[in-house]
Amino acid sequence: MATGPGDSPLKYELIKQDPRTGARLGRVTTRHGVFDTPAFMPVGTQGTIKGVLPDHVAGTGSQIILANTYHLMLRPGEKTVAALGGLHRFMAWPGPILTDSGGFQVFSLADINKIGDDGVTFKSHVDGSVVHLTPERSIQVQNDLGADVIMAFDECPAGDAPVEYQRRAVERTLRWAEVCQRAHARESEQALFAIVQGGTDLELRAACARELIGMEFPGYAIGGLAVGEGFEATKKVLEAVTPGLPEGKPRYLMGVGFPRDIVAAVSVGVDMMDCVLPTRNGRNAYAFTATGALRLRNSRFISDEGPIEAGCDCYACRTFTRGAIRHYFFAGEMLGPILVSLHNIRFFQRLMADVRRAIGEGTFDQWRRTDPRAALGPSSAEVGVSAEPAEGHEPSAAEEDRTLEAKQEPT
Amino acid sequence: MATGPGDSPLKYELIKQDPRTGARLGRVTTRHGVFDTPAFMPVGTQGTIKGVLPDHVAGTGSQIILANTYHLMLRPGEKTVAALGGLHRFMAWPGPILTDSGGFQVFSLADINKIGDDGVTFKSHVDGSVVHLTPERSIQVQNDLGADVIMAFDECPAGDAPVEYQRRAVERTLRWAEVCQRAHARESEQALFAIVQGGTDLELRAACARELIGMEFPGYAIGGLAVGEGFEATKKVLEAVTPGLPEGKPRYLMGVGFPRDIVAAVSVGVDMMDCVLPTRNGRNAYAFTATGALRLRNSRFISDEGPIEAGCDCYACRTFTRGAIRHYFFAGEMLGPILVSLHNIRFFQRLMADVRRAIGEGTFDQWRRTDPRAALGPSSAEVGVSAEPAEGHEPSAAEEDRTLEAKQEPT
Repeated sequence: MATGPGDSPLKYELIKQDPRTGARLGRVTTRHGVFDTPAFMPVGTQGTIKGVLPDHVAGTGSQIILANTYHLMLRPGEKTVAALGGLHRFMAWPGPILTDSGGFQVFSLADINKIGDDGVTFKSHVDGSVVHLTPERSIQVQNDLGADVIMAFDECPAGDAPVEYQRRAVERTLRWAEVCQRAHARESEQALFAIVQGGTDLELRAACARELIGMEFPGYAIGGLAVGEGFEATKKVLEAVTPGLPEGKPRYLMGVGFPRDIVAAVSVGVDMMDCVLPTRNGRNAYAFTATGALRLRNSRFISDEGPIEAGCDCYACRTFTRGAIRHYFFAGEMLGPILVSLHNIRFFQRLMADVRRAIGEGTFDQWRRTDPRAALGPSSAEVGVSAEPAEGHEPSAAEEDRTLEAKQEPT
Repeated sequence: MATGPGDSPLKYELIKQDPRTGARLGRVTTRHGVFDTPAFMPVGTQGTIKGVLPDHVAGTGSQIILANTYHLMLRPGEKTVAALGGLHRFMAWPGPILTDSGGFQVFSLADINKIGDDGVTFKSHVDGSVVHLTPERSIQVQNDLGADVIMAFDECPAGDAPVEYQRRAVERTLRWAEVCQRAHARESEQALFAIVQGGTDLELRAACARELIGMEFPGYAIGGLAVGEGFEATKKVLEAVTPGLPEGKPRYLMGVGFPRDIVAAVSVGVDMMDCVLPTRNGRNAYAFTATGALRLRNSRFISDEGPIEAGCDCYACRTFTRGAIRHYFFAGEMLGPILVSLHNIRFFQRLMADVRRAIGEGTFDQWRRTDPRAALGPSSAEVGVSAEPAEGHEPSAAEEDRTLEAKQEPT
């Protein structure tokens, strides 16, 4: 335990409010150290950022990382992680960690047998056994894992679910939030965040937020976005919900996203985000650059002596040519996925550092209009697309991860 | 090009001859730096030590690495490697590199159409095209790749080939050695080593060595061992051949091996060795330790908080528990193969450092009798073997590599 935030497990400090947008510069202190906000959290689904060693993750400027309760609960099991010294020791990440509640994965990935008012029954993808996940159980698992920020167990319906279903899901989410609060056994060490649901219905979102704010959580997340509702709908919800969240607490947008989405979220006052894009796309030879995405399998890179991105200070760009990285992908070598994942994480963290600098200097509004990265989305993010088929190369991602990652991608 | 060895591409310096064995402490200077001998070279078949970034390879104490001409010639092609700045730049390894001739792979792996007196015709495993590999072509490819030490193209028969076949293979190898010498176009930059063949026939071996010594190569390799002839037969050949090789030049035993084999080779005066064991076995959760091998999938490691090997200073042992590494293997995460490969390479390099120290202190004979590592072979190297099936986990090794690696393992 490094410099702690006193009695409370988390302290949020608002350093500067942007005068022209909702963007805010801040700093969060946890019992395992500090992270600057707006922050991007790389995802270590099964207790590792796929292919990237912790010293290299730290080298990208990442200050907080995320791990998935759903996956770790099923394998190796939270008791095993606890016996091995807890999640920080297990992942060899001494800094802040956030775990999600398992809700998103259960509702989007699992073979669900039954959704009830007390929780969800589903089949484990690891051994086929029947698992019952409740708010109490989610919190117990997260208490055992020991992350600095833990999430309330929520119901996350599909983006196109009818409003009546969304209403019932919000009611459940609110009831469950209370159960989670009561079940939380390590309140002085782990900060429990609530999750605002409600789909694209702004009244429902407002009602959900109002109720949760009354329950006084140390932080608030916006869930149920980037699940197929489209960028404009996402933005509308963010614009409606975010400014109403408590100013003195961090706000976390779950599962987002492309640079364009990150900038939009920051603009309305979001402080934390996570996404598998840098690593999932990296494993598929898709590299982020300021001028658009590179598909590094493309034949135009065969003899390209340049780095992935000119001027990038990441280990991959300092060390390897595009031509060599292309070769590693075709030869099926781990080094291809490793190097592009590393670059992509660094790309996202340089973006976040520049976002924070712009807010600090009071130039964020101008920055977001002029920096080419601020416009990078799923469709705009391709330069020089070739006819070459982009064969999937997933050297070690389990099937369920691929499904998860595909769903988390905003469309 | 770092501190070069003057006009010659390679300088061997004999620092100390062990008084009781044939072991010798030395130092080799190349145009890309120095390596201490006896040296163990990790194998970067396709231009990368599988899963291990160059900074971590250097961190294991490796001073020289190996790459395979056969693989790089077929993909991405030697002209591409040259266009990308040559092999050192391509692999991001600024230190000494050795390339083999392609002979071993062609004879043991390839779908051979024809062996003639001028070379071998075979089918490419990459695209099915027909490739003709001759001594001239092997040297041209190795000249284009640009390694510091390159190897003559030899015929490497199976360990059980009849002596008459071995005799014809030696004749071919001698003729081809001369062709290679004439074809070599970068004599001041790359040192061309000859390869002694002859199977387990000691007279044939002696005759082959005598002829090659007369041709004055800057270094000599012993090939055609560890191809199924057994440890005792290997030792007999080594004892007969090695002491007769020129004292002032490095001696390289190809494709060896387990610590036991390395110590046996050092004992008769071998200076350089290479093997895929640390990385291939690492990818299969097989970890080398001084007290024997660990199969890290074994259920007894589930909650094991210790490092792979107590006292080891490698990144994996400093950073991760056995329990976490076991989890990464079961979860199909790249980090498992990465960490155990890293540990195993460091294990081999610590072994070599201790071998060199013992020779320097004049205690090698005692060391090899008392250090438990000196006895580690394929059968002795297992402690606590469990009934658990050792499923193959080869996250990114191409099929042909697995075949190669299986054959290179001494039995």
